[in-house]
Amino acid sequence: MIEEIAPTRPRLQVSCIQFEPRIGAVDANVARASELVRAAAATGSRLIVLPELANTGYVFDTTEEARSLAEPVPDGPSCRAWLALAAELGVHIVAGIAERAGDALFNSAVVAGPEGFIGVYRKSHLWHRENVFFEKGDLGFPVFETALGKIGVAICYDGWFPETFRQLALGGAEIVCVPTNWVPMPDQPAGEAAMANILHRAAAHSNGIFIACADRVGVERGQPFEGQSLIIDAKGWTLAGPASKDRPETVTAVIDLAEAGRKDLNEFNNVLRDRRTDVYG
Amino acid sequence: MIEEIAPTRPRLQVSCIQFEPRIGAVDANVARASELVRAAAATGSRLIVLPELANTGYVFDTTEEARSLAEPVPDGPSCRAWLALAAELGVHIVAGIAERAGDALFNSAVVAGPEGFIGVYRKSHLWHRENVFFEKGDLGFPVFETALGKIGVAICYDGWFPETFRQLALGGAEIVCVPTNWVPMPDQPAGEAAMANILHRAAAHSNGIFIACADRVGVERGQPFEGQSLIIDAKGWTLAGPASKDRPETVTAVIDLAEAGRKDLNEFNNVLRDRRTDVYG
Repeated sequence: MIEEIAPTRPRLQVSCIQFEPRIGAVDANVARASELVRAAAATGSRLIVLPELANTGYVFDTTEEARSLAEPVPDGPSCRAWLALAAELGVHIVAGIAERAGDALFNSAVVAGPEGFIGVYRKSHLWHRENVFFEKGDLGFPVFETALGKIGVAICYDGWFPETFRQLALGGAEIVCVPTNWVPMPDQPAGEAAMANILHRAAAHSNGIFIACADRVGVERGQPFEGQSLIIDAKGWTLAGPASKDRPETVTAVIDLAEAGRKDLNEFNNVLRDRRTDVYG
Repeated sequence: MIEEIAPTRPRLQVSCIQFEPRIGAVDANVARASELVRAAAATGSRLIVLPELANTGYVFDTTEEARSLAEPVPDGPSCRAWLALAAELGVHIVAGIAERAGDALFNSAVVAGPEGFIGVYRKSHLWHRENVFFEKGDLGFPVFETALGKIGVAICYDGWFPETFRQLALGGAEIVCVPTNWVPMPDQPAGEAAMANILHRAAAHSNGIFIACADRVGVERGQPFEGQSLIIDAKGWTLAGPASKDRPETVTAVIDLAEAGRKDLNEFNNVLRDRRTDVYG
């Protein structure tokens, strides 16, 4: 029997902010991100996603540099700025941040709401030299219950692992916010959609969840980034974006999170219940 | 340290045969499929994939009809015909077949080689009214060691579950052959690539495996099929196809299966080893 259809919910406007943080310029990055969050909120967005490591930039030279830029969560200056902004604007912000927790550094994202700090996610799958600077995330895949709905977070290379989205969907996430710093793939054929876009569309479809990816642009210490931020609906179709590869840009879509509650495909099939957990290893 | 680079292997030409089986016309379907296999072999293909339920057609009216058309594996007439063809042509054939095993019916695929019967896979995830006719597959996700390489099989809706490809990749599959009968999605936006194509490209990329999908075309008892057969490389890029939505067509690519042995992305990352099995539920 088909599950009861979840009633529609208030329409939610979501924005992903694609911009260019500068390595080490924390104050300027937070100020620029805040301007862009303000502009998105002014158009009606209530859930706003910023890129990975939005406060610090990405390409650290040394562990010492990374450590000097990282901050405690939620009491560091970048996090406090975003909390104040979320409260002032009445929005939820998901923002990538370099987190310092005792001796450990994490590539994290904070979830800030109008009522204050909601939680932090620590990137589970570290890409390349991130392994030099950061510890692997030790918080699993939390799903945050918010006034807007159930929000999961994944960061960049996490999206290469279908397990990430499966865990979040099984945990009840309706939307996964993805602060990211996608880098180009050397073997990408000209004219093909970015593999990062394809991976997240497949994940949204396979799990019946919305996914909102905020990437950065620019070239930092020789490393170019991919842009192409996008917002994907719970069937895997692209609602907004992909943005350009190289220009700051905000992508925005209006969604009904109730659609993520509709996992039935017909009277026999359900995207989560059909899993053959009896034969998966 | 980066794993030793797997040496190249003999180039392998793969074909996926997109054609239109007719419901109930087993002899004619096997004859037509065999002609097309012959044609593909004549161009040099050594691994040839046929659609799901290639011998019987798809839209059964009743369990009795399905039962009357299904056959034992490997001793039924369709399977014997494909085994003879594989031996004669010196090729491997992966073909969808309605299998009868005692009282149970399975939506299966046989793997036939020049030396004879290699194995059978039984579809794990059943779509829609298949649940009326078939039992869920009870053989897990076998990987067949063949003279060409390590071959996994998935059938249609199996591809909606990233677990399918993960299991096969962890089991050592270098290429997954996908006999399928994809049906249109009611919500597919005009001009978008088929979600079925996107799902398999993401799976190939996330696992570093080749995927070869042979779909059917035509309309059967009111049910249209999607075509768009394709062959995907171990990075997720499309090597051949997608074929048309509605015409019989064979898509062919030449591949080096050694590429599926290269799971390292850089000196830190490996698409399988980077899985955070310590935090997946």
